Amino acid sequence: MADHDQQLHTVKAYQAELERLSAMIAKMGGFAEEQLARAIRSVVKRDSRLAQEVVAEDIRIDDLEGQVEQLAVRVIALRQPMAVDLREIVAAMRISIELERIGDLAKNIAKRAQTINVETPFPNLFAIDRIGAEAIRQVHQVISAYAARDVEMALAVWRRDQTLDELYNSLFRELLTYMMEDPRTIGRATHLLFVGKNLERIGDHATNIAETVHYLVTGRPLAGERPKADTTATEGVAGLAGGGKG
Amino acid sequence: MADHDQQLHTVKAYQAELERLSAMIAKMGGFAEEQLARAIRSVVKRDSRLAQEVVAEDIRIDDLEGQVEQLAVRVIALRQPMAVDLREIVAAMRISIELERIGDLAKNIAKRAQTINVETPFPNLFAIDRIGAEAIRQVHQVISAYAARDVEMALAVWRRDQTLDELYNSLFRELLTYMMEDPRTIGRATHLLFVGKNLERIGDHATNIAETVHYLVTGRPLAGERPKADTTATEGVAGLAGGGKG
Repeated sequence: MADHDQQLHTVKAYQAELERLSAMIAKMGGFAEEQLARAIRSVVKRDSRLAQEVVAEDIRIDDLEGQVEQLAVRVIALRQPMAVDLREIVAAMRISIELERIGDLAKNIAKRAQTINVETPFPNLFAIDRIGAEAIRQVHQVISAYAARDVEMALAVWRRDQTLDELYNSLFRELLTYMMEDPRTIGRATHLLFVGKNLERIGDHATNIAETVHYLVTGRPLAGERPKADTTATEGVAGLAGGGKG
Repeated sequence: MADHDQQLHTVKAYQAELERLSAMIAKMGGFAEEQLARAIRSVVKRDSRLAQEVVAEDIRIDDLEGQVEQLAVRVIALRQPMAVDLREIVAAMRISIELERIGDLAKNIAKRAQTINVETPFPNLFAIDRIGAEAIRQVHQVISAYAARDVEMALAVWRRDQTLDELYNSLFRELLTYMMEDPRTIGRATHLLFVGKNLERIGDHATNIAETVHYLVTGRPLAGERPKADTTATEGVAGLAGGGKG
């Protein structure tokens, strides 16, 4: 009887640890999303004080990542989990790393906001707003997909990443045009370009999380090459820039 | 006697697993460094075929990362390691993640090379060569520091990251000047700016690895804020860009 009690206690403690891991990821995800939303607002509303707060609070996400790693390693060592439980723990570690990177990119956006905000306002901040809204949506959806262990929802995020890439491509082209028309805008436009690129990269991290949710629920990696549409790295700008080919 | 043999066998198998983890990291590190060197050469020597190879072979680093994760999780589950052994395993996982990101950034540089190489040559590719050499040096040194479990060497990498940031800052200013003087260079200059930014980020990953080596050897996280000198995100370009403040 005492043995049975002991066993029951162990199972319960184990279950509680797994639930705590999930809860930590949910908390991290919510905070990363909030940091992202505030970073975008600091650019669009030209709010440098808000930007400063975002930079200062990034350390909270870093701390949470460290806590997830510690707990995950302890649970693996103590419980020697197999199959689905092991996937739970590995998935939590992986997702916490992705969320930490999302937080980092939000911090970088906020840093740039502080520079951009002291310059003359740029006409097309609305493009940043649109890309930003899409990035927030992707992060929000993929955290929900994790919380619900919902593969379909994760796959929807995975497929939709292209939208963000396309929005970034338009921004890239639009900003180059501005720079060429009025060289005085080059400094500001370059900063906005980096903000846009950071938002596009946040989408990539959301896609990585979607892949992890797929692996967590099905036990299989997501097959097939992911949809990719950031073509600015491989796209000739010769026409735009007026330079000749070759 | 049989028990003793069995125990000895287990200890030996465990030791062999830890050594295998280290060897996998060494292999990954060597390959990441090679990919980086080839990516830079594909830009500086305008060699698009080489760039294509770099892009195609990135998957080898991704595979290695997956193998490190699998082995690390298995060793933690089987051996329930404590203290220094646990640090060995967690460090291997962390470093493999950083190396995978370095590989990814090298791939991005190679992708951009393919675009840059069809445009008119840009005058200051030598600046990319210089930043590239510094990035390779940092990656090489930090992998050696890991292999030798040498904290001092790791700290040297950590401190030297500023050099890379400063080189990137000069490139940033130089390219903005080019763009303003001749708007036809804007397209090409923007691609080079992203190449430079990727090299600067590779330096950050080398610094992360240095911090992990410190933690691995001493058991303590590296105290104090890291030296940071990429000031382009927070630096006003109003003077350069000719725009007014506020």
